[in-house]
Amino acid sequence: MIPIITAFESSPDRGKGLARDMRVRWALEEVDQPYEVHLVSSAAMKQPAHRALHPFGQIPTYQEGDLALFESGAIVLHIAEHRAGLLPDDANARARAITWMFAAVNTVEPPILELVVAKFLEGDKPWSEQRLPLIKDRIRARLGELSDRLGDADWLDGAFSAGDLMMVGVLMRLKPSGMLDEYPNLAAYVARSEARPAFKRAFAAQLAVFTSKHPAG
Amino acid sequence: MIPIITAFESSPDRGKGLARDMRVRWALEEVDQPYEVHLVSSAAMKQPAHRALHPFGQIPTYQEGDLALFESGAIVLHIAEHRAGLLPDDANARARAITWMFAAVNTVEPPILELVVAKFLEGDKPWSEQRLPLIKDRIRARLGELSDRLGDADWLDGAFSAGDLMMVGVLMRLKPSGMLDEYPNLAAYVARSEARPAFKRAFAAQLAVFTSKHPAG
Repeated sequence: MIPIITAFESSPDRGKGLARDMRVRWALEEVDQPYEVHLVSSAAMKQPAHRALHPFGQIPTYQEGDLALFESGAIVLHIAEHRAGLLPDDANARARAITWMFAAVNTVEPPILELVVAKFLEGDKPWSEQRLPLIKDRIRARLGELSDRLGDADWLDGAFSAGDLMMVGVLMRLKPSGMLDEYPNLAAYVARSEARPAFKRAFAAQLAVFTSKHPAG
Repeated sequence: MIPIITAFESSPDRGKGLARDMRVRWALEEVDQPYEVHLVSSAAMKQPAHRALHPFGQIPTYQEGDLALFESGAIVLHIAEHRAGLLPDDANARARAITWMFAAVNTVEPPILELVVAKFLEGDKPWSEQRLPLIKDRIRARLGELSDRLGDADWLDGAFSAGDLMMVGVLMRLKPSGMLDEYPNLAAYVARSEARPAFKRAFAAQLAVFTSKHPAG
């Protein structure tokens, strides 16, 4: 049974890998699971047919036989639980890897989402410029703590896991801001992830969606 | 082995159950697992001893023998996986319950956190008042979608699960705003949760921490 995921027909990030389908594609590549992609327009995402799969009208979704899931974190965890390569065998190490998945989406991502909101949803407001330094300082607080914990290790807890995958998926959203470069070990952590063959295949696949619809020149 | 969790020595919400230890206490009560609580001051949370348990200097943490976890979502999932009562037996239903856990913390909670930030971290800024309606509209978008999905069901997907526990834990943060009352089925969903004996025990336990340090009168 080949899983089917959904992704933006035309990604707002122009194929930079910042949309959340990237996390799911990457996980599927890490475990060598082929998959199909259904592309959805921004308008179709808000229609009942898609909302039956995703109540919040977003991507990605995941279908495998009778099972339908949404939320990148839940999908990555489902993939990691059913195929080898993304969670350690040891029960305690497995629980810690899942802790990092939640830390990525519930502790590190919220201030980063604030930056996205400030730029794209409130970019035309008079306070937009003045708020950016405050938001960036809140992001820096999290990055500093994450940098301290990572130290000079390659990954957050032993071998590469779904926890690293989710954390890097979140940190990538900061690439346009340049903020990652303030933390050399975090920048290296992201670069180390981007060098993984599975990441490269996933990145190329989502970029191809964009370039096929928007040929250069 | 009795698990040990950490909680605020003096909770900023004055015992209203909005701190994230409430989610963990509630999960432990649902599965009838006794636990110990170590109280931590806001200052001690930022010290190396606590950061060894929680790299971001927050509560709750969870210790059980050699295992140390942080992040309320990860702790609740760990409890749900190891004790009966919070996840369905059917594999697909289990995956959907976990999807709702991630939806709670990664889709519904971020705009609610924005409201908390606007009130408490940026409450003294000149733009604070003007931003509130924008943030509340973003929260309403999520609440409307969640309300549509819940419909007239008691719980999000079949029986009460860890997905409901996390979603209600997030929605409770909106109680001071009164916004929940705009969605009668969501207000009833929260009230239905608060009526559960396990919720009541957990709520009373966290309130007792506050009242013991701040006697009335």
